[in-house]
Amino acid sequence: MIYLDYSATTKPNSGVLDTFIKCSNDYIGNPNSLHKLGVEAKNLIDSATLQISDLLNLKNSKIIYTSGSTESNNLAILGVCNMYKTRGKHIITTKLEHSSIYGPLKQLEELGYIIDYVKLDKSGIVDLEDLKRLITNDTILVSICTVNSEIGLLQPIDEIAAIVKKYPRCIFHTDATQAIGKVKINLDNADLVSFSAHKFFGIKGIGALVKKDNIELKPIISGGSSTTIYRSGTPCLPLIVSLAKALRLSLNDIESNYNKVKELNSYLKTSLSKYDKVVINSNDYSIPHILNISIRGVKPETMLHALEEYEIYISTKSACSSNKAISEAVYALTNDLDLAKSSIRISISSITTKEEINTFIEKFDICYNKLTNLR
Amino acid sequence: MIYLDYSATTKPNSGVLDTFIKCSNDYIGNPNSLHKLGVEAKNLIDSATLQISDLLNLKNSKIIYTSGSTESNNLAILGVCNMYKTRGKHIITTKLEHSSIYGPLKQLEELGYIIDYVKLDKSGIVDLEDLKRLITNDTILVSICTVNSEIGLLQPIDEIAAIVKKYPRCIFHTDATQAIGKVKINLDNADLVSFSAHKFFGIKGIGALVKKDNIELKPIISGGSSTTIYRSGTPCLPLIVSLAKALRLSLNDIESNYNKVKELNSYLKTSLSKYDKVVINSNDYSIPHILNISIRGVKPETMLHALEEYEIYISTKSACSSNKAISEAVYALTNDLDLAKSSIRISISSITTKEEINTFIEKFDICYNKLTNLR
Repeated sequence: MIYLDYSATTKPNSGVLDTFIKCSNDYIGNPNSLHKLGVEAKNLIDSATLQISDLLNLKNSKIIYTSGSTESNNLAILGVCNMYKTRGKHIITTKLEHSSIYGPLKQLEELGYIIDYVKLDKSGIVDLEDLKRLITNDTILVSICTVNSEIGLLQPIDEIAAIVKKYPRCIFHTDATQAIGKVKINLDNADLVSFSAHKFFGIKGIGALVKKDNIELKPIISGGSSTTIYRSGTPCLPLIVSLAKALRLSLNDIESNYNKVKELNSYLKTSLSKYDKVVINSNDYSIPHILNISIRGVKPETMLHALEEYEIYISTKSACSSNKAISEAVYALTNDLDLAKSSIRISISSITTKEEINTFIEKFDICYNKLTNLR
Repeated sequence: MIYLDYSATTKPNSGVLDTFIKCSNDYIGNPNSLHKLGVEAKNLIDSATLQISDLLNLKNSKIIYTSGSTESNNLAILGVCNMYKTRGKHIITTKLEHSSIYGPLKQLEELGYIIDYVKLDKSGIVDLEDLKRLITNDTILVSICTVNSEIGLLQPIDEIAAIVKKYPRCIFHTDATQAIGKVKINLDNADLVSFSAHKFFGIKGIGALVKKDNIELKPIISGGSSTTIYRSGTPCLPLIVSLAKALRLSLNDIESNYNKVKELNSYLKTSLSKYDKVVINSNDYSIPHILNISIRGVKPETMLHALEEYEIYISTKSACSSNKAISEAVYALTNDLDLAKSSIRISISSITTKEEINTFIEKFDICYNKLTNLR
């Protein structure tokens, strides 16, 4: 089997699973309990939180544990807008976001918020001049992903943050789900950052929203005390500690892993560029972990299932919007409906081998010839 | 170590952990992905959902997976009130609920909703005549826990449901977190039911809201597709399948387990009744898994820490409100501030042994004498 869908989800690292099991067996108290078992559990969570803070080099920030990036994104957007209702009703985002950004934004639109989509340049990068034109004193939130999940475009987060900072009443949120654990990024300039463990060989069901101390949020899940006042519920100790472990492991060798993935991506891209009907949608601004291509005239599902026959697994677009007819991100980048209708995403990771890429290329060739000759 | 805080959380059953690990290793696809690994993952989740439905004997219902009961309770209350905004602004609940009920209710109160607390009879059971008096055509929601978490009072859910059913625009939600897996209950008459795996030897971080098909909910976490349209996010396959397993195991021997716990409770209660200053707050309507007592003049924290010296772990009140000064539930039942200030909760389970109870009684005697003579 050749798995090339790492941007959808990853298999948990065995060390991460070991940590999960060890914690489940050794720390049985509810971290909210007053007795020694509760206190021990709370202390372990506090250590994990400190470790995550150190690993991500966070300053003046709080880590809010969530069930994953979808919840983190909802909490960021709804939490800000419900907290600072009187500040304004204008939000800026892009056409490159995950569905869990558009979900809460749609709710806010129904309540009268105005959503503006900042222009992208020809490479799919946020047009900073357009952002400057759009942002006003009425802008309450700017939400722009660090890395887009379909094409892998890495946005200039620090420059965006600098523009937003000139409007002290405006908050900058970035969904860093496809970035953390893959590329070295500075999170310090964003006010709110979302991420999820299962994208970097952690466990599904745990993620976080990192929040600057000077920002308040209205919780979307409220009740008794938990690790923070921004999200109630029994703290999931084994999930939290395993998140810290997955993060540590993914950051340990991030540079060499990045270089390895970059080399594989380059090799793969060169091979795929040779095909007449292949258009490479990812570009130099894309992280190497994601290679998005379109095959003119070939339905993405058809290619996906053809490769599946060889136990090769890729995706058509981000898993959470796999039921949609076109890739909104590819359309936003290319403005070409044909490309948006025929795009596939090949996502590789630090555990992908050259051998796997070679087999992929070999089988892709067979599928490509079969499917393009069919027409 | 003697753990007598099972109502706060339980150590996951080893078979449940095995299932979790097996699923994490064998089902690596994102259930939202279109390829075979995704489809296999989706099919396994569907089987688990069917199994849970069968185990709980659900009819015309949908299972919405959540991160646990706190989220389920928030989704039930906010989901109903945001969906059926025009139906009315009146909600009925009790003084016996978990903090994750009061959290969202407080938010709604700020928006102009009227919250009424139904009277309890002398045993702490909902006064059905008072419920009939309170409920009107403007009542949008009745939320009453199946079993209270501090005293263990089991409410007449079917009779409450029958009263609510006479108002077709009113929805009945019950938080069954402390009931499921412990007592045989019929969930069929409630419109919405919350529960959490970690209360019946499952894993922390997964729970569900069961919803009748004829009811709609406005999601609190929205975005792309998931197992239902009511809660977005990557479906956490290993957590979901382990929830089904934990439920199956807990229901397998529910009757014999119940009888065992009942016997232990009765033995414990008899022993503790002998002490002058002990008042038993739990009564015949309490499930045997929870024994709440007050020790007049002794601070609950003092007793908790005294027992802790012998590695015996009990709690003062529900873990999620352990920072509050008095037990609201004991006060609601007894109307006696002294009792509410001095209550402790001993919660036992099917894996508690007679030997453990005997050791507890022995050590309790030492602590009791020490602490009551101190005064």
